[in-house]
Amino acid sequence: MRVVIAGVAGVGKSTVLKSVEKLTSYDIINFGTLMFEMAKEIKLIESRDEIRRLNVDTQINLQKKAAAAIGQMDNVIIDTHMAIRGPRGFLPGLPEWVIRELKVSAFFLLEADPVEIRKRRNNDPSRLRDEESVQDIEMHQTVNRSYAVSYSIFTGATVSFIDNLPGLADEVAEKIVERLSK
Amino acid sequence: MRVVIAGVAGVGKSTVLKSVEKLTSYDIINFGTLMFEMAKEIKLIESRDEIRRLNVDTQINLQKKAAAAIGQMDNVIIDTHMAIRGPRGFLPGLPEWVIRELKVSAFFLLEADPVEIRKRRNNDPSRLRDEESVQDIEMHQTVNRSYAVSYSIFTGATVSFIDNLPGLADEVAEKIVERLSK
Amino acid sequence: MRVVIAGVAGVGKSTVLKSVEKLTSYDIINFGTLMFEMAKEIKLIESRDEIRRLNVDTQINLQKKAAAAIGQMDNVIIDTHMAIRGPRGFLPGLPEWVIRELKVSAFFLLEADPVEIRKRRNNDPSRLRDEESVQDIEMHQTVNRSYAVSYSIFTGATVSFIDNLPGLADEVAEKIVERLSK
Repeated sequence: MRVVIAGVAGVGKSTVLKSVEKLTSYDIINFGTLMFEMAKEIKLIESRDEIRRLNVDTQINLQKKAAAAIGQMDNVIIDTHMAIRGPRGFLPGLPEWVIRELKVSAFFLLEADPVEIRKRRNNDPSRLRDEESVQDIEMHQTVNRSYAVSYSIFTGATVSFIDNLPGLADEVAEKIVERLSK
Repeated sequence: MRVVIAGVAGVGKSTVLKSVEKLTSYDIINFGTLMFEMAKEIKLIESRDEIRRLNVDTQINLQKKAAAAIGQMDNVIIDTHMAIRGPRGFLPGLPEWVIRELKVSAFFLLEADPVEIRKRRNNDPSRLRDEESVQDIEMHQTVNRSYAVSYSIFTGATVSFIDNLPGLADEVAEKIVERLSK
Repeated sequence: MRVVIAGVAGVGKSTVLKSVEKLTSYDIINFGTLMFEMAKEIKLIESRDEIRRLNVDTQINLQKKAAAAIGQMDNVIIDTHMAIRGPRGFLPGLPEWVIRELKVSAFFLLEADPVEIRKRRNNDPSRLRDEESVQDIEMHQTVNRSYAVSYSIFTGATVSFIDNLPGLADEVAEKIVERLSK
Protein backbone atom coordinates (compact mmCIF):
# COMPACT_ATOMS: atom_id res chain seq x y z
CA MET A 1 0.00 0.00 0.00
CA ARG A 2 1.13 3.48 -0.93
CA VAL A 3 -0.84 6.30 0.64
CA VAL A 4 -0.81 10.03 -0.10
CA ILE A 5 -1.61 12.50 2.66
CA ALA A 6 -1.98 16.06 1.43
CA GLY A 7 -3.45 19.39 2.41
CA VAL A 8 -2.76 23.10 1.98
CA ALA A 9 -0.10 24.84 4.09
CA GLY A 10 -1.52 25.63 7.50
CA VAL A 11 -4.06 22.80 7.50
CA GLY A 12 -2.07 21.11 10.27
CA LYS A 13 -0.62 18.26 8.22
CA SER A 14 2.71 17.95 10.06
CA THR A 15 1.01 17.42 13.43
CA VAL A 16 -1.33 14.80 12.00
CA LEU A 17 1.55 13.03 10.25
CA LYS A 18 3.56 12.87 13.47
CA SER A 19 0.60 11.29 15.19
CA VAL A 20 0.00 8.86 12.31
CA GLU A 21 3.66 7.85 12.47
CA LYS A 22 3.28 6.79 16.11
CA LEU A 23 0.18 4.73 15.36
CA THR A 24 1.38 2.73 12.34
CA SER A 25 4.30 0.85 10.88
CA TYR A 26 4.04 2.92 7.68
CA ASP A 27 7.10 4.91 6.71
CA ILE A 28 6.44 8.56 5.99
CA ILE A 29 8.27 9.99 3.02
CA ASN A 30 8.23 13.61 1.99
CA PHE A 31 8.19 13.65 -1.80
CA GLY A 32 10.04 16.97 -2.15
CA THR A 33 12.72 15.92 0.33
CA LEU A 34 13.29 12.65 -1.50
CA MET A 35 13.64 14.55 -4.79
CA PHE A 36 16.16 16.88 -3.18
CA GLU A 37 18.17 14.01 -1.67
CA MET A 38 18.33 12.22 -5.00
CA ALA A 39 19.48 15.40 -6.73
CA LYS A 40 22.06 16.06 -4.04
CA GLU A 41 23.46 12.55 -4.26
CA ILE A 42 24.26 12.97 -7.94
CA LYS A 43 25.80 16.40 -7.13
CA LEU A 44 23.14 18.21 -9.17
CA ILE A 45 22.34 20.69 -6.42
CA GLU A 46 23.33 21.49 -2.86
CA SER A 47 20.26 23.13 -1.32
CA ARG A 48 16.56 22.36 -1.66
CA ASP A 49 15.69 25.77 -3.11
CA GLU A 50 17.85 25.00 -6.13
CA ILE A 51 15.32 22.41 -7.37
CA ARG A 52 13.15 25.17 -8.78
CA ARG A 53 16.06 26.62 -10.70
CA LEU A 54 16.78 23.38 -12.54
CA ASN A 55 15.41 23.29 -16.05
CA VAL A 56 11.99 21.73 -16.50
CA ASP A 57 13.22 18.48 -18.09
CA THR A 58 15.67 17.88 -15.25
CA GLN A 59 12.92 18.54 -12.71
CA ILE A 60 10.64 16.08 -14.49
CA ASN A 61 13.39 13.46 -14.48
CA LEU A 62 13.92 13.98 -10.76
CA GLN A 63 10.19 13.64 -10.13
CA LYS A 64 10.08 10.43 -12.12
CA LYS A 65 13.04 8.93 -10.27
CA ALA A 66 11.63 9.84 -6.86
CA ALA A 67 8.20 8.48 -7.83
CA ALA A 68 9.68 5.26 -9.21
CA ALA A 69 11.65 4.74 -6.01
CA ILE A 70 8.53 5.17 -3.87
CA GLY A 71 6.53 2.98 -6.26
CA GLN A 72 8.82 0.10 -5.24
CA MET A 73 8.15 0.59 -1.53
CA ASP A 74 5.33 -0.92 0.47
CA ASN A 75 3.43 0.48 3.43
CA VAL A 76 4.55 3.99 2.82
CA ILE A 77 2.80 7.30 3.41
CA ILE A 78 3.75 10.02 0.92
CA ASP A 79 3.69 13.55 2.26
CA THR A 80 3.07 15.75 -0.77
CA HIS A 81 0.75 18.27 -2.42
CA MET A 82 -2.29 17.86 -4.66
CA ALA A 83 -1.59 21.24 -6.24
CA ILE A 84 1.08 23.84 -5.56
CA ARG A 85 0.27 27.53 -5.96
CA GLY A 86 3.04 29.07 -7.99
CA PRO A 87 3.55 32.43 -9.71
CA ARG A 88 1.82 31.17 -12.87
CA GLY A 89 -1.11 29.41 -11.20
CA PHE A 90 -1.73 26.00 -9.69
CA LEU A 91 0.78 23.31 -10.58
CA PRO A 92 -0.34 19.67 -10.29
CA GLY A 93 1.62 17.98 -7.52
CA LEU A 94 1.21 14.57 -9.14
CA PRO A 95 1.37 14.96 -12.93
CA GLU A 96 0.83 11.83 -15.00
CA TRP A 97 4.49 10.73 -14.99
CA VAL A 98 4.48 10.85 -11.17
CA ILE A 99 1.06 9.35 -10.51
CA ARG A 100 1.73 6.38 -12.78
CA GLU A 101 4.98 5.54 -11.01
CA LEU A 102 3.63 6.07 -7.49
CA LYS A 103 0.81 3.55 -7.84
CA VAL A 104 -1.14 5.15 -4.99
CA SER A 105 -3.83 3.05 -3.29
CA ALA A 106 -5.35 5.76 -1.12
CA PHE A 107 -5.52 9.55 -1.01
CA PHE A 108 -6.26 11.43 2.20
CA LEU A 109 -6.89 15.12 1.78
CA LEU A 110 -6.75 17.08 5.02
CA GLU A 111 -9.07 20.06 4.99
CA ALA A 112 -9.96 22.82 7.41
CA ASP A 113 -11.92 26.05 7.62
CA PRO A 114 -10.06 28.59 5.42
CA VAL A 115 -10.39 31.23 8.16
CA GLU A 116 -8.70 28.87 10.64
CA ILE A 117 -5.95 28.09 8.09
CA ARG A 118 -5.37 31.82 7.50
CA LYS A 119 -4.98 32.32 11.27
CA ARG A 120 -2.50 29.45 11.61
CA ARG A 121 -0.41 30.85 8.77
CA ASN A 122 -0.41 34.31 10.37
CA ASN A 123 0.95 32.78 13.58
CA ASP A 124 3.68 30.88 11.75
CA PRO A 125 6.75 33.13 11.43
CA SER A 126 8.24 30.90 8.71
CA ARG A 127 5.41 31.83 6.30
CA LEU A 128 5.99 35.56 6.21
CA ARG A 129 5.65 36.01 2.49
CA ASP A 130 2.44 34.04 2.10
CA GLU A 131 -0.35 36.26 0.84
CA GLU A 132 -3.19 33.86 0.08
CA SER A 133 -6.47 35.39 1.22
CA VAL A 134 -9.19 33.34 2.92
CA GLN A 135 -10.91 33.16 -0.47
CA ASP A 136 -7.68 32.00 -2.13
CA ILE A 137 -7.33 29.25 0.47
CA GLU A 138 -10.90 28.16 -0.10
CA MET A 139 -10.24 27.99 -3.84
CA HIS A 140 -6.99 26.07 -3.27
CA GLN A 141 -8.88 23.49 -1.20
CA THR A 142 -11.57 23.14 -3.88
CA VAL A 143 -8.91 22.72 -6.57
CA ASN A 144 -7.18 20.09 -4.41
CA ARG A 145 -10.39 18.04 -4.25
CA SER A 146 -10.70 18.15 -7.99
CA TYR A 147 -7.09 17.00 -8.39
CA ALA A 148 -7.59 14.15 -5.91
CA VAL A 149 -10.54 12.88 -7.94
CA SER A 150 -8.64 13.09 -11.23
CA TYR A 151 -5.53 11.39 -9.84
CA SER A 152 -7.53 8.50 -8.43
CA ILE A 153 -8.71 7.40 -11.87
CA PHE A 154 -5.19 6.46 -12.93
CA THR A 155 -4.73 3.94 -10.13
CA GLY A 156 -8.25 3.26 -8.87
CA ALA A 157 -7.22 4.71 -5.50
CA THR A 158 -9.71 5.67 -2.81
CA VAL A 159 -10.19 9.37 -2.05
CA SER A 160 -10.94 10.52 1.47
CA PHE A 161 -11.58 14.11 2.53
CA ILE A 162 -10.76 14.54 6.20
CA ASP A 163 -11.83 17.49 8.30
CA ASN A 164 -8.82 18.40 10.43
CA LEU A 165 -10.55 20.00 13.40
CA PRO A 166 -8.38 22.31 15.52
CA GLY A 167 -6.76 20.53 18.46
CA LEU A 168 -7.89 17.10 17.32
CA ALA A 169 -4.84 15.94 15.35
CA ASP A 170 -4.66 12.67 17.30
CA GLU A 171 -8.28 11.82 16.60
CA VAL A 172 -7.78 12.67 12.92
CA ALA A 173 -4.68 10.47 12.81
CA GLU A 174 -6.65 7.61 14.39
CA LYS A 175 -9.37 8.02 11.79
CA ILE A 176 -6.82 7.80 8.96
CA VAL A 177 -5.15 4.75 10.47
CA GLU A 178 -8.52 3.09 11.01
CA ARG A 179 -9.49 3.71 7.38
CA LEU A 180 -6.18 2.34 6.19
CA SER A 181 -6.89 -0.94 7.96
CA LYS A 182 -10.09 -1.42 5.93
CA MET B 1 -22.97 4.15 -28.78
CA ARG B 2 -22.24 3.20 -25.22
CA VAL B 3 -23.94 5.35 -22.59
CA VAL B 4 -23.40 5.52 -18.83
CA ILE B 5 -26.27 6.46 -16.54
CA ALA B 6 -25.22 7.01 -12.95
CA GLY B 7 -26.38 8.66 -9.76
CA VAL B 8 -26.13 8.19 -6.00
CA ALA B 9 -28.34 5.64 -4.25
CA GLY B 10 -31.78 7.09 -3.69
CA VAL B 11 -31.64 9.47 -6.66
CA GLY B 12 -34.31 7.37 -8.38
CA LYS B 13 -32.11 5.79 -11.02
CA SER B 14 -33.96 2.45 -11.26
CA THR B 15 -37.28 4.11 -12.04
CA VAL B 16 -35.72 6.30 -14.71
CA LEU B 17 -33.89 3.33 -16.23
CA LYS B 18 -37.11 1.31 -16.44
CA SER B 19 -38.74 4.18 -18.27
CA VAL B 20 -35.73 4.64 -20.58
CA GLU B 21 -35.84 0.93 -21.39
CA LYS B 22 -39.44 1.25 -22.65
CA LEU B 23 -38.57 4.23 -24.84
CA THR B 24 -35.46 2.92 -26.62
CA SER B 25 -33.90 -0.10 -28.24
CA TYR B 26 -30.81 0.28 -26.04
CA ASP B 27 -29.95 -2.67 -23.83
CA ILE B 28 -29.43 -1.79 -20.19
CA ILE B 29 -26.55 -3.54 -18.51
CA ASN B 30 -25.71 -3.31 -14.84
CA PHE B 31 -21.94 -3.27 -14.62
CA GLY B 32 -21.76 -4.92 -11.19
CA THR B 33 -24.20 -7.65 -12.19
CA LEU B 34 -22.20 -8.42 -15.33
CA MET B 35 -19.01 -8.67 -13.25
CA PHE B 36 -20.75 -11.05 -10.86
CA GLU B 37 -22.12 -13.22 -13.66
CA MET B 38 -18.70 -13.49 -15.28
CA ALA B 39 -17.15 -14.44 -11.94
CA LYS B 40 -19.88 -16.98 -11.26
CA GLU B 41 -19.49 -18.58 -14.68
CA ILE B 42 -15.84 -19.36 -14.02
CA LYS B 43 -16.82 -20.69 -10.55
CA LEU B 44 -14.87 -17.94 -8.80
CA ILE B 45 -17.75 -16.99 -6.51
CA GLU B 46 -21.35 -17.93 -5.83
CA SER B 47 -22.95 -14.77 -4.47
CA ARG B 48 -22.56 -11.14 -5.45
CA ASP B 49 -21.29 -10.04 -2.03
CA GLU B 50 -18.24 -12.24 -2.50
CA ILE B 51 -16.85 -9.88 -5.17
CA ARG B 52 -15.58 -7.54 -2.47
CA ARG B 53 -13.75 -10.38 -0.75
CA LEU B 54 -11.74 -11.29 -3.86
CA ASN B 55 -8.22 -9.93 -3.86
CA VAL B 56 -7.68 -6.60 -5.60
CA ASP B 57 -5.94 -8.04 -8.68
CA THR B 58 -8.75 -10.51 -9.27
CA GLN B 59 -11.31 -7.72 -8.92
CA ILE B 60 -9.39 -5.59 -11.41
CA ASN B 61 -9.28 -8.48 -13.87
CA LEU B 62 -13.02 -8.99 -13.50
CA GLN B 63 -13.61 -5.27 -14.09
CA LYS B 64 -11.45 -5.36 -17.20
CA LYS B 65 -13.25 -8.39 -18.61
CA ALA B 66 -16.69 -6.93 -17.97
CA ALA B 67 -15.63 -3.58 -19.46
CA ALA B 68 -14.10 -5.24 -22.52
CA ALA B 69 -17.28 -7.24 -23.10
CA ILE B 70 -19.42 -4.09 -22.94
CA GLY B 71 -16.90 -2.22 -25.13
CA GLN B 72 -17.77 -4.67 -27.92
CA MET B 73 -21.51 -3.97 -27.66
CA ASP B 74 -23.42 -1.23 -29.43
CA ASN B 75 -26.45 0.75 -28.30
CA VAL B 76 -26.03 -0.17 -24.69
CA ILE B 77 -26.77 1.76 -21.51
CA ILE B 78 -24.44 0.97 -18.64
CA ASP B 79 -25.96 1.23 -15.18
CA THR B 80 -23.04 1.96 -12.87
CA HIS B 81 -21.51 4.43 -10.40
CA MET B 82 -19.25 7.43 -10.87
CA ALA B 83 -17.84 6.91 -7.37
CA ILE B 84 -18.66 4.38 -4.67
CA ARG B 85 -18.46 5.40 -1.02
CA GLY B 86 -16.51 2.71 0.77
CA PRO B 87 -14.97 2.37 4.23
CA ARG B 88 -11.74 4.02 3.03
CA GLY B 89 -13.32 6.86 1.05
CA PHE B 90 -14.65 7.30 -2.48
CA LEU B 91 -13.63 4.64 -4.97
CA PRO B 92 -13.71 5.57 -8.68
CA GLY B 93 -16.41 3.51 -10.40
CA LEU B 94 -14.62 3.74 -13.73
CA PRO B 95 -10.85 3.61 -13.14
CA GLU B 96 -8.62 3.96 -16.18
CA TRP B 97 -8.59 0.25 -17.09
CA VAL B 98 -12.40 0.27 -17.15
CA ILE B 99 -12.97 3.60 -18.88
CA ARG B 100 -10.56 2.76 -21.70
CA GLU B 101 -12.30 -0.54 -22.43
CA LEU B 102 -15.83 0.86 -22.15
CA LYS B 103 -15.33 3.53 -24.80
CA VAL B 104 -18.26 5.58 -23.46
CA SER B 105 -19.85 8.15 -25.80
CA ALA B 106 -22.14 9.82 -23.28
CA PHE B 107 -22.44 10.21 -19.52
CA PHE B 108 -25.74 11.04 -17.85
CA LEU B 109 -25.51 11.87 -14.18
CA LEU B 110 -28.85 11.85 -12.38
CA GLU B 111 -28.96 14.33 -9.54
CA ALA B 112 -31.52 15.37 -6.96
CA ASP B 113 -31.89 17.50 -3.85
CA PRO B 114 -29.84 15.78 -1.10
CA VAL B 115 -32.69 16.25 1.38
CA GLU B 116 -35.04 14.44 -1.00
CA ILE B 117 -32.49 11.65 -1.50
CA ARG B 118 -32.08 11.28 2.27
CA LYS B 119 -35.87 10.91 2.61
CA ARG B 120 -36.09 8.29 -0.14
CA ARG B 121 -33.34 6.26 1.50
CA ASN B 122 -35.11 6.45 4.87
CA ASN B 123 -38.25 5.02 3.24
CA ASP B 124 -36.34 2.19 1.59
CA PRO B 125 -36.15 -0.77 4.01
CA SER B 126 -33.34 -2.38 1.99
CA ARG B 127 -30.96 0.47 2.89
CA LEU B 128 -31.01 0.09 6.64
CA ARG B 129 -27.30 0.45 7.22
CA ASP B 130 -26.84 3.59 5.15
CA GLU B 131 -25.67 6.46 7.29
CA GLU B 132 -24.79 9.19 4.79
CA SER B 133 -25.99 12.55 6.08
CA VAL B 134 -27.57 15.16 3.81
CA GLN B 135 -24.17 16.86 3.72
CA ASP B 136 -22.47 13.57 2.81
CA ILE B 137 -24.93 13.07 -0.03
CA GLU B 138 -24.28 16.59 -1.29
CA MET B 139 -20.55 15.91 -1.23
CA HIS B 140 -21.03 12.58 -3.00
CA GLN B 141 -22.95 14.32 -5.80
CA THR B 142 -20.26 16.98 -6.15
CA VAL B 143 -17.56 14.30 -6.29
CA ASN B 144 -19.59 12.42 -8.92
CA ARG B 145 -19.62 15.52 -11.14
CA SER B 146 -15.90 15.84 -10.87
CA TYR B 147 -15.45 12.17 -11.80
CA ALA B 148 -17.78 12.51 -14.80
CA VAL B 149 -15.67 15.39 -16.12
CA SER B 150 -12.41 13.49 -15.64
CA TYR B 151 -13.71 10.30 -17.23
CA SER B 152 -14.98 12.14 -20.29
CA ILE B 153 -11.48 13.25 -21.27
CA PHE B 154 -10.38 9.69 -21.97
CA THR B 155 -13.05 9.09 -24.60
CA GLY B 156 -14.26 12.56 -25.53
CA ALA B 157 -17.70 11.63 -24.21
CA THR B 158 -20.43 14.16 -23.52
CA VAL B 159 -21.38 14.84 -19.91
CA SER B 160 -24.95 15.66 -18.98
CA PHE B 161 -26.19 16.51 -15.49
CA ILE B 162 -29.88 15.72 -15.19
CA ASP B 163 -32.12 16.95 -12.42
CA ASN B 164 -34.30 13.98 -11.45
CA LEU B 165 -37.34 15.80 -10.10
CA PRO B 166 -39.62 13.76 -7.77
CA GLY B 167 -42.45 12.03 -9.62
CA LEU B 168 -41.12 12.98 -13.04
CA ALA B 169 -39.11 9.86 -13.94
CA ASP B 170 -40.90 9.50 -17.29
CA GLU B 171 -40.13 13.08 -18.29
CA VAL B 172 -36.51 12.62 -17.24
CA ALA B 173 -36.29 9.41 -19.26
CA GLU B 174 -37.72 11.20 -22.29
CA LYS B 175 -35.13 13.95 -21.90
CA ILE B 176 -32.30 11.40 -21.84
CA VAL B 177 -33.66 9.55 -24.87
CA GLU B 178 -34.10 12.83 -26.73
CA ARG B 179 -30.51 13.84 -25.99
CA LEU B 180 -29.27 10.44 -27.11
CA SER B 181 -30.88 10.98 -30.51
CA LYS B 182 -28.82 14.15 -31.06
CA MET C 1 5.62 27.35 -24.44
CA ARG C 2 2.11 26.55 -25.52
CA VAL C 3 -0.61 28.34 -23.62
CA VAL C 4 -4.37 27.82 -23.62
CA ILE C 5 -6.71 30.74 -22.95
CA ALA C 6 -10.33 29.71 -22.53
CA GLY C 7 -13.60 30.95 -21.09
CA VAL C 8 -17.33 30.68 -21.76
CA ALA C 9 -18.95 32.75 -24.52
CA GLY C 10 -19.55 36.28 -23.28
CA VAL C 11 -16.72 36.26 -20.75
CA GLY C 12 -14.87 38.82 -22.88
CA LYS C 13 -12.17 36.53 -24.22
CA SER C 14 -11.76 38.20 -27.65
CA THR C 15 -11.05 41.61 -26.12
CA VAL C 16 -8.50 40.17 -23.71
CA LEU C 17 -6.85 38.17 -26.51
CA LYS C 18 -6.52 41.28 -28.68
CA SER C 19 -4.84 43.06 -25.81
CA VAL C 20 -2.56 40.09 -25.06
CA GLU C 21 -1.56 40.02 -28.74
CA LYS C 22 -0.32 43.60 -28.54
CA LEU C 23 1.71 42.90 -25.41
CA THR C 24 3.55 39.73 -26.46
CA SER C 25 5.34 38.01 -29.30
CA TYR C 26 3.10 34.95 -28.87
CA ASP C 27 1.06 33.93 -31.88
CA ILE C 28 -2.62 33.44 -31.16
CA ILE C 29 -4.23 30.47 -32.84
CA ASN C 30 -7.90 29.64 -32.75
CA PHE C 31 -8.13 25.87 -32.51
CA GLY C 32 -11.47 25.60 -34.34
CA THR C 33 -10.30 27.89 -37.14
CA LEU C 34 -7.14 25.86 -37.62
CA MET C 35 -9.21 22.66 -37.81
CA PHE C 36 -11.44 24.27 -40.40
CA GLU C 37 -8.52 25.52 -42.49
CA MET C 38 -6.90 22.10 -42.48
CA ALA C 39 -10.19 20.48 -43.54
CA LYS C 40 -10.72 23.08 -46.26
CA GLU C 41 -7.22 22.61 -47.63
CA ILE C 42 -7.83 18.93 -48.27
CA LYS C 43 -11.22 19.82 -49.85
CA LEU C 44 -13.12 18.02 -47.08
CA ILE C 45 -15.46 20.94 -46.40
CA GLU C 46 -16.08 24.49 -47.57
CA SER C 47 -17.62 26.27 -44.59
CA ARG C 48 -16.86 26.07 -40.90
CA ASP C 49 -20.33 24.86 -39.93
CA GLU C 50 -19.75 21.70 -41.93
CA ILE C 51 -17.22 20.45 -39.35
CA ARG C 52 -20.04 19.30 -37.09
CA ARG C 53 -21.60 17.31 -39.91
CA LEU C 54 -18.45 15.26 -40.55
CA ASN C 55 -18.53 11.81 -38.99
CA VAL C 56 -16.99 11.44 -35.55
CA ASP C 57 -13.84 9.63 -36.71
CA THR C 58 -13.11 12.32 -39.31
CA GLN C 59 -13.61 15.02 -36.69
CA ILE C 60 -11.24 13.21 -34.31
CA ASN C 61 -8.65 12.94 -37.07
CA LEU C 62 -8.96 16.65 -37.78
CA GLN C 63 -8.58 17.44 -34.08
CA LYS C 64 -5.46 15.28 -33.89
CA LYS C 65 -3.89 16.92 -36.93
CA ALA C 66 -4.61 20.44 -35.69
CA ALA C 67 -3.30 19.56 -32.22
CA ALA C 68 -0.16 17.93 -33.63
CA ALA C 69 0.53 21.01 -35.76
CA ILE C 70 0.22 23.32 -32.75
CA GLY C 71 2.30 20.91 -30.64
CA GLN C 72 5.21 21.67 -32.99
CA MET C 73 4.92 25.42 -32.50
CA ASP C 74 6.55 27.49 -29.79
CA ASN C 75 5.32 30.62 -28.04
CA VAL C 76 1.77 30.13 -29.12
CA ILE C 77 -1.50 30.99 -27.41
CA ILE C 78 -4.33 28.61 -28.21
CA ASP C 79 -7.80 30.14 -28.21
CA THR C 80 -10.14 27.27 -27.44
CA HIS C 81 -12.76 25.86 -25.03
CA MET C 82 -12.45 23.76 -21.89
CA ALA C 83 -15.92 22.34 -22.51
CA ILE C 84 -18.49 23.02 -25.20
CA ARG C 85 -22.18 22.87 -24.37
CA GLY C 86 -23.84 20.78 -27.04
CA PRO C 87 -27.28 19.24 -27.47
CA ARG C 88 -26.18 16.11 -25.61
CA GLY C 89 -24.34 17.82 -22.75
CA PHE C 90 -20.84 19.18 -22.20
CA LEU C 91 -18.22 18.00 -24.65
CA PRO C 92 -14.57 18.14 -23.55
CA GLY C 93 -12.71 20.72 -25.64
CA LEU C 94 -9.42 18.94 -25.17
CA PRO C 95 -9.99 15.18 -25.13
CA GLU C 96 -6.99 12.97 -24.49
CA TRP C 97 -5.90 12.73 -28.16
CA VAL C 98 -5.82 16.54 -28.33
CA ILE C 99 -4.28 17.29 -24.95
CA ARG C 100 -1.42 14.83 -25.49
CA GLU C 101 -0.51 16.40 -28.85
CA LEU C 102 -0.86 20.00 -27.67
CA LYS C 103 1.65 19.63 -24.84
CA VAL C 104 0.23 22.68 -23.04
CA SER C 105 2.43 24.43 -20.44
CA ALA C 106 -0.17 26.81 -19.02
CA PHE C 107 -3.94 27.12 -18.86
CA PHE C 108 -5.64 30.46 -18.29
CA LEU C 109 -9.35 30.27 -17.63
CA LEU C 110 -11.13 33.61 -17.94
CA GLU C 111 -14.10 33.85 -15.61
CA ALA C 112 -16.73 36.46 -14.84
CA ASP C 113 -19.94 36.94 -12.89
CA PRO C 114 -22.59 34.79 -14.65
CA VAL C 115 -25.09 37.68 -14.45
CA GLU C 116 -22.61 39.92 -16.26
CA ILE C 117 -21.98 37.23 -18.88
CA ARG C 118 -25.72 36.81 -19.42
CA LYS C 119 -26.04 40.56 -20.01
CA ARG C 120 -23.15 40.63 -22.50
CA ARG C 121 -24.69 37.78 -24.46
CA ASN C 122 -28.06 39.56 -24.54
CA ASN C 123 -26.37 42.61 -26.04
CA ASP C 124 -24.58 40.55 -28.68
CA PRO C 125 -26.83 40.20 -31.74
CA SER C 126 -24.73 37.31 -33.08
CA ARG C 127 -25.80 35.09 -30.17
CA LEU C 128 -29.52 35.16 -30.74
CA ARG C 129 -30.14 31.48 -30.23
CA ASP C 130 -28.22 31.16 -26.97
CA GLU C 131 -30.51 30.14 -24.13
CA GLU C 132 -28.16 29.40 -21.24
CA SER C 133 -29.63 30.78 -18.02
CA VAL C 134 -27.48 32.50 -15.39
CA GLN C 135 -27.48 29.20 -13.49
CA ASP C 136 -26.41 27.32 -16.64
CA ILE C 137 -23.53 29.74 -17.13
CA GLU C 138 -22.47 29.30 -13.51
CA MET C 139 -22.50 25.53 -13.99
CA HIS C 140 -20.56 25.84 -17.26
CA GLN C 141 -17.86 27.85 -15.48
CA THR C 142 -17.65 25.30 -12.66
CA VAL C 143 -17.37 22.47 -15.18
CA ASN C 144 -14.65 24.39 -17.02
CA ARG C 145 -12.59 24.59 -13.82
CA SER C 146 -12.88 20.89 -13.32
CA TYR C 147 -11.77 20.24 -16.90
CA ALA C 148 -8.79 22.58 -16.54
CA VAL C 149 -7.61 20.64 -13.49
CA SER C 150 -8.01 17.27 -15.22
CA TYR C 151 -6.26 18.41 -18.40
CA SER C 152 -3.29 19.77 -16.47
CA ILE C 153 -2.38 16.33 -15.12
CA PHE C 154 -1.50 15.05 -18.59
CA THR C 155 1.17 17.66 -19.20
CA GLY C 156 1.92 19.08 -15.75
CA ALA C 157 0.65 22.46 -16.93
CA THR C 158 -0.16 25.32 -14.59
CA VAL C 159 -3.79 26.31 -14.15
CA SER C 160 -4.75 29.90 -13.57
CA PHE C 161 -8.28 31.20 -12.98
CA ILE C 162 -8.53 34.84 -13.99
CA ASP C 163 -11.35 37.16 -13.02
CA ASN C 164 -12.17 39.16 -16.15
CA LEU C 165 -13.60 42.29 -14.58
CA PRO C 166 -15.81 44.44 -16.85
CA GLY C 167 -13.87 47.19 -18.62
CA LEU C 168 -10.50 45.93 -17.43
CA ALA C 169 -9.46 43.75 -20.39
CA ASP C 170 -6.08 45.52 -20.68
CA GLU C 171 -5.27 44.94 -17.01
CA VAL C 172 -6.31 41.29 -17.31
CA ALA C 173 -4.13 40.91 -20.41
CA GLU C 174 -1.18 42.43 -18.54
CA LYS C 175 -1.72 39.99 -15.68
CA ILE C 176 -1.66 37.04 -18.08
CA VAL C 177 1.45 38.30 -19.84
CA GLU C 178 3.15 38.92 -16.50
CA ARG C 179 2.35 35.39 -15.34
CA LEU C 180 3.64 33.96 -18.61
CA SER C 181 7.01 35.60 -17.98
CA LYS C 182 7.40 33.71 -14.69
